[in-house]
Amino acid sequence: MYQYLQNQDFPKALSGAAAAVEHLLDAELPHPAGAHARLLNAMRYSALGAGKRLRAFLVLTGARLSGAEEQNALFAAAATEMIHCYSLIHDDLPAMDDDTLRRGRPSCHVAFDEATAILAGDALLTLAFELAADPRTHPDPGVRCELARAMAVAAGGNGMVGGQMIDLASERRSVDLDHIRTLESMKTGALIAFSCEAGAILAGRDREFRQALRDFGTDVGLAFQVYDDILDVTGDEATLGKTVGKDESTGKATFITLLGLDGARQEAQALVRQATSHLERFGEQAQPLRAFAEYVLTRKK
Amino acid sequence: MYQYLQNQDFPKALSGAAAAVEHLLDAELPHPAGAHARLLNAMRYSALGAGKRLRAFLVLTGARLSGAEEQNALFAAAATEMIHCYSLIHDDLPAMDDDTLRRGRPSCHVAFDEATAILAGDALLTLAFELAADPRTHPDPGVRCELARAMAVAAGGNGMVGGQMIDLASERRSVDLDHIRTLESMKTGALIAFSCEAGAILAGRDREFRQALRDFGTDVGLAFQVYDDILDVTGDEATLGKTVGKDESTGKATFITLLGLDGARQEAQALVRQATSHLERFGEQAQPLRAFAEYVLTRKK
Repeated sequence: MYQYLQNQDFPKALSGAAAAVEHLLDAELPHPAGAHARLLNAMRYSALGAGKRLRAFLVLTGARLSGAEEQNALFAAAATEMIHCYSLIHDDLPAMDDDTLRRGRPSCHVAFDEATAILAGDALLTLAFELAADPRTHPDPGVRCELARAMAVAAGGNGMVGGQMIDLASERRSVDLDHIRTLESMKTGALIAFSCEAGAILAGRDREFRQALRDFGTDVGLAFQVYDDILDVTGDEATLGKTVGKDESTGKATFITLLGLDGARQEAQALVRQATSHLERFGEQAQPLRAFAEYVLTRKK
Repeated sequence: MYQYLQNQDFPKALSGAAAAVEHLLDAELPHPAGAHARLLNAMRYSALGAGKRLRAFLVLTGARLSGAEEQNALFAAAATEMIHCYSLIHDDLPAMDDDTLRRGRPSCHVAFDEATAILAGDALLTLAFELAADPRTHPDPGVRCELARAMAVAAGGNGMVGGQMIDLASERRSVDLDHIRTLESMKTGALIAFSCEAGAILAGRDREFRQALRDFGTDVGLAFQVYDDILDVTGDEATLGKTVGKDESTGKATFITLLGLDGARQEAQALVRQATSHLERFGEQAQPLRAFAEYVLTRKK
C-alpha cells in the first residue's frame, strides 16, 4: 500500500508517486487515432513525461493519511493532474501569459499550434471529470459526486480560473499584498487545497478532518507561490524548465516587489510553519506532508 | 409538469423551454463580484439572453418522454447548455474559427478579450460538471455520475472537441462525404445525442430505450448540420445572427460543396426520416421530438 510514499528520502517518495500516476495517466489518456489524432497527441504531450506531480503526491499522501484505497487515490490523483496540465496549456497561450517554455520543453501551442492547444486543454479538463465520475475512482457514487464537485469548485470561476483572471488583470497595475494573496489562493491555492482534501473525501472523513487537510493545503500552496516568485528572481532557467525573470519583464507585482527578497523568504517560512500546525492532530502519519512543506522552501525548481 | 412542452405550436414550446432553462442558468451562474468580476460577466454574457436552447429542449423533451422529474431535467438541460455555450466561445476565438458575430452580438472575445473568453469557456465547462454532480440534478448519485460521464464522453476529445479538431484540419483540404459525416457526428452530433439521451439516464431507462433516443439524436443532429450548411448559403445574416458565406470564404468542404444544394436538401430530408423512425416505439408521446425534426428542415436560423 502506497509503497513509494514509505521512502524516507523525500525526492524518492515524490518521484515514486509521480511514476505511479504517470503510469495511470498513460493508460487513461486516449490512444492517438482517427482524423483528430493531432489533438490526442497534444493531450499526451502536455500531460505525460514531465512535471513534478506535486498535486498527485498531495492527493496520494492525504489519501494514505485518511485511510483511502490506493487504487482509488491514484484515479483522483490522475484527474487532478489533468486539471493542472490543462491549466498550464491555457495559461501559456499567447493571449494569456504568452510563455513558450514549459517543463523544459516548448509549450503546447508552440509544439502544436494555438487551436490545438486550446482544444487539448478543453479535452483534458473534460477527461478529468470523466475520470472523477468513473467507478474505478470509488465504488460509492456519492463519494465520486462529492469529489467531482469539490474539484469543480476548486478549478472553476471562483477558484483556479478566477485566479488566473485576476492575475492577468494585475499586470502593470499597483496592487497590495492582500490582492496578491487572494489571487494566489485562487489561482494555485484552491487546487492544492483540493489535492490535500481529496483523499479524505475518498475515505469519507468528517468535516474537521477534511478542513485540517484543506487548511494545510491553503497555507502550503501560498508558501509554494511565494517561493515561486523567489525562484523567478534567483532561479536558473535550465533547472526550472520555464522562463525566469518573467515577473519583472511583465511589470507584475509579486511577493518580491511588495516584500523584498528577505521579506518574501520570511513570509514563505511563516506560511510553512502555519501549514504544518494544521497537521498536529495527525501525528507521525503526516510525516510525508511535513516533508512536502519543507521541500517547498528548499526546492530548486 | 413540463407545461411549456405541451404547447402544440412548436416555436412556443421551444421558447417556453428556453425561458425555463434561462431562468435556471441565471440562478446558477455566479453573481459577478470580486476582482474577477470580468470573468463572471463574460460567462453570463455568453450563456444568457440569447440562443435557441435546442439542446435544452431535447433534454427536456427526452426527459418528459422517459418519465424523469422536470426539476432534475432542468438541471441537466442547464449543464448541457453550459457545455454548448463554452464550445461556441472557444470555437469563435481568432485561433479557431475567428468569428466576431454570435447570436446577433459580438463574440465573447470581441465583447471582452481573448484571455477572458478562453477563461470564461473553461469556467462554463467546469460549472457544467459541478451542476451534473449536484444533488439537485438527481437524488441518486449513481445517476448523477452516469450523467456526468455520458456528458464528458460526448463533449471530450473523442466527441465534440475532437470534431472541432477535425473541422479545423479540414480547411482548404479535399475531403469526402464520410469524412464530413464523421466530423459533424463528433462536433455537433455527440452533444445532441447526449441531450436526447440525458432524460432517459435521469429516469433510469434501459439500454434499448436510451439507444433509441441516442439514435434519434445522432440522425437529427446530422440533419441539423446539413441544414446549417444550406443556411450558410441561402440564409440571411441578420436573421441567423452569425456570419454567412463563411464556409466558402474559408475554402471549407461542406455538404453543399460535395452534394450540391439539392443533394444536401435530399440528404437532410432522408436523415430526418431516419431520425423519426427511431421514435416509433414511443408513439404519441414522442410528438415534440417529431416536431423538432420537422423544425430542423424549416427553420430560418
